[in-house]
Amino acid sequence: MAKDKKLVEAITSMDVDFAQWYTDVVKKAELMGYSSVKGCMIFKPAGYAIWENIQHELDRRFKETGVENVYMPMFIPESLLEREKDHVEGFAPEVAWVTYGGLNPLQERLCVRPTSETLFCDFYKDEIQSYRDLPKVYNQWCSVVRWEKETRPFLRSREFLWQEGHTAHATAEEAEERTQQMLNLYADFCEEVLAMPVIRGRKTDKEKFAGAEATYTIEALMHDGKALQSGTSHNFGDGFAKAFEIQYTDKDNQLKYVHQTSWGMTTRLIGAIIMVHGDDSGLVLPPRIAPVQVDVIPIMQNKEGVLDKAHEVLETLRAAGLRAKLDDTDKSPGWKFSEQEMRGIPVRVEMGPRDIEANQAILVRRDTREKITVSLDTLAEKITEILDTMQTEMLERARAHRDAHTYDAHNYEEFKDIVANKPGFIRGMWCGEQACEDKIKEETTATSRCMPFTQEKISDVCVCCGKPAKKLVYWGKAY
Amino acid sequence: MAKDKKLVEAITSMDVDFAQWYTDVVKKAELMGYSSVKGCMIFKPAGYAIWENIQHELDRRFKETGVENVYMPMFIPESLLEREKDHVEGFAPEVAWVTYGGLNPLQERLCVRPTSETLFCDFYKDEIQSYRDLPKVYNQWCSVVRWEKETRPFLRSREFLWQEGHTAHATAEEAEERTQQMLNLYADFCEEVLAMPVIRGRKTDKEKFAGAEATYTIEALMHDGKALQSGTSHNFGDGFAKAFEIQYTDKDNQLKYVHQTSWGMTTRLIGAIIMVHGDDSGLVLPPRIAPVQVDVIPIMQNKEGVLDKAHEVLETLRAAGLRAKLDDTDKSPGWKFSEQEMRGIPVRVEMGPRDIEANQAILVRRDTREKITVSLDTLAEKITEILDTMQTEMLERARAHRDAHTYDAHNYEEFKDIVANKPGFIRGMWCGEQACEDKIKEETTATSRCMPFTQEKISDVCVCCGKPAKKLVYWGKAY
Repeated sequence: MAKDKKLVEAITSMDVDFAQWYTDVVKKAELMGYSSVKGCMIFKPAGYAIWENIQHELDRRFKETGVENVYMPMFIPESLLEREKDHVEGFAPEVAWVTYGGLNPLQERLCVRPTSETLFCDFYKDEIQSYRDLPKVYNQWCSVVRWEKETRPFLRSREFLWQEGHTAHATAEEAEERTQQMLNLYADFCEEVLAMPVIRGRKTDKEKFAGAEATYTIEALMHDGKALQSGTSHNFGDGFAKAFEIQYTDKDNQLKYVHQTSWGMTTRLIGAIIMVHGDDSGLVLPPRIAPVQVDVIPIMQNKEGVLDKAHEVLETLRAAGLRAKLDDTDKSPGWKFSEQEMRGIPVRVEMGPRDIEANQAILVRRDTREKITVSLDTLAEKITEILDTMQTEMLERARAHRDAHTYDAHNYEEFKDIVANKPGFIRGMWCGEQACEDKIKEETTATSRCMPFTQEKISDVCVCCGKPAKKLVYWGKAY
Repeated sequence: MAKDKKLVEAITSMDVDFAQWYTDVVKKAELMGYSSVKGCMIFKPAGYAIWENIQHELDRRFKETGVENVYMPMFIPESLLEREKDHVEGFAPEVAWVTYGGLNPLQERLCVRPTSETLFCDFYKDEIQSYRDLPKVYNQWCSVVRWEKETRPFLRSREFLWQEGHTAHATAEEAEERTQQMLNLYADFCEEVLAMPVIRGRKTDKEKFAGAEATYTIEALMHDGKALQSGTSHNFGDGFAKAFEIQYTDKDNQLKYVHQTSWGMTTRLIGAIIMVHGDDSGLVLPPRIAPVQVDVIPIMQNKEGVLDKAHEVLETLRAAGLRAKLDDTDKSPGWKFSEQEMRGIPVRVEMGPRDIEANQAILVRRDTREKITVSLDTLAEKITEILDTMQTEMLERARAHRDAHTYDAHNYEEFKDIVANKPGFIRGMWCGEQACEDKIKEETTATSRCMPFTQEKISDVCVCCGKPAKKLVYWGKAY
């Protein structure tokens, strides 16, 4: 038993040190490893498989809205990056520069894309001539590089994986519609698939994307009460179009600028899954995103017939469309249970000689640890049912946790008290001045997360300066 | 009609100038575009969709053999690239170097991966301790960079997309088995899915991968008689393991080196599809890889009921699992036909008011241009049947073309005559000396493509030097 406990004991409790707990889970669940390039991570099979499922489901939803995938070069010439003023200021300080191709110095430096607005604009400039060429609703799956100083697995690394959508439209209205459509698609995906509730809203000017007219965001609350920006969608208006001269001839024969958007989600989402659902035994994966949903663990597997029956059960589960695996390694059952829990596999099936004799197995839910005995005849149906229930309840629990950690502040004293003592979202009115955002950030380290689409008036005055308030804002410390 | 013809007339005939025909097809079928970074291409939706289908099908086949996907960093520190001598000599002259991160020069240069053997080795060194950790059968989908001087869409570009599998095994036998397994998987994929016959064989030492003990290859013949290396699989033995000290404790408690393999396929395959199947009307896509298999083109679509019926047909085809689209743009039918042909969509459905009245439509096969009239009641079944036939016949035609352009040379005069006058594969015996390969390459520009697994003895002596022959070799000019 000592050996069986080792895997679990090696994890720091999340209440003792959340950051260390997170690092322990990433390592023990074998999601990610460190590489010899500082700040660049290795996605191990268990981590990458989650990303593949995210990709698969997001891509399907994208295509239903008419998105087409493309692939642009990973390099951006310096002169191209500099074309849009706000954009280059936002990104130039943190890009990696290629200066040599083979043995020869390059005539012009190339940066490794930190994001690809400039490349898409350069492309659209030639592709778009007429209203018939619109809209362009393109997306790419790729990695991007930002030379961050401090990094954390999944949350912040010098290279990360993402998708970036870049669209061009005839009218401002259509661009705005697409910006909101993609934000809502992201939010629905988080809630329906990742069981992670999000606040949908708009970023303040201070927090918006470099070069955007408006940035919309979804903000999730982690178990430790910190916020995580989980997806963003930007409306550029015709700013980039003017910088890059992307014009089209409209039906009325007039030359007009296009209106553009971009939107992205990243491998941060894996960090969010860990921090929203995990517990002191490790990862807990929502069934819809779990690469393996069911772990069949035979007990006394050397007894005649046990492994045969376990294989038979495995095939039955797979035939029912479940993502199931069988752990027939020579480890002890206790060790296998710990591994299944650490890796967040939603359901495990325990079956020993006596269970088999009684034509039954024991199902254990990863999140609640609830155990039930089920006839082998109805195993697949029962597991499917449990996975559905678990998916629903995980979302409900995360929402209850989020709501229980969302506080209203009516004045600055209250605000500071909440930041200091109650980790979570703080709802507070705002006058609209950046000075207040700056002051709050400097004095409390909380930032404005978003102005939620669903506005309420919880006070007449700004939570910071006391002047008349314009907007309700969600504030919080953030990853 | 003048307008309708423009699209087709713009293509150079393949018999007049094959290289120009290729470039025309790439452009007119909207597969790829040029970017502002010299030598880096843009995969447009029609090109990228082919790659997505290749990925999807290859990935499925990989996973059936136990492959797990991972993602490694795109950067390799210079000292890591230099660890294996042959390898660094092969790649260092053509890599792109990152020398700045943000505003600061890096302490050590990082190259953008040209291939990731060194990164996987560095990773495996820590991951593999015991025989229980073996085998590792990992793969990644990514882009790689090689600073080529001359580039051509899909065939050679500074950045391209590929998959690279990297495995580690306990024994030499297991590594050899995996090397051959993946080569055969590639060959089956090319034949079954891309309708492209390939020669399976082994590269000579001169042509093998930098650092490999053995490189296996599949070689396809393009329509112009040039060869295209279409996939390779390498057995590294324990060479990399010794350079990187990748050792494991075996069951007998002895410390042993692992044996490694790597294998890859790239976006070159799209170039191969174009050059094996295309004709003077454009691309011809094998049905199994075609992003769109059926193009429904209404005739006199403004007549009442035509578009409604076309939509109905579209839904029926989709419900039957066919990848179908409807072209309801305001272009003329002739123009739409040209576009469908240019893009290589395997089947088009023409349906006008009279067809609808007669409850029928006209099907036209892209490859043979065969037209048949079919009842709307059996449309989906008939198209499915035609697509299967087309897939089979495309492979047969490509094989017949390849066989008709494969020549035996018994001496050097014959060899030179064939190279000069008969584009295709040349089968010729070889003494095993690199001097003969060098001479042949210098004097004829033909290279050894492979020593086929299926060996025959067509002569006793080397086709170049006349000394006793050891192996039958396929020679040819190559892309």
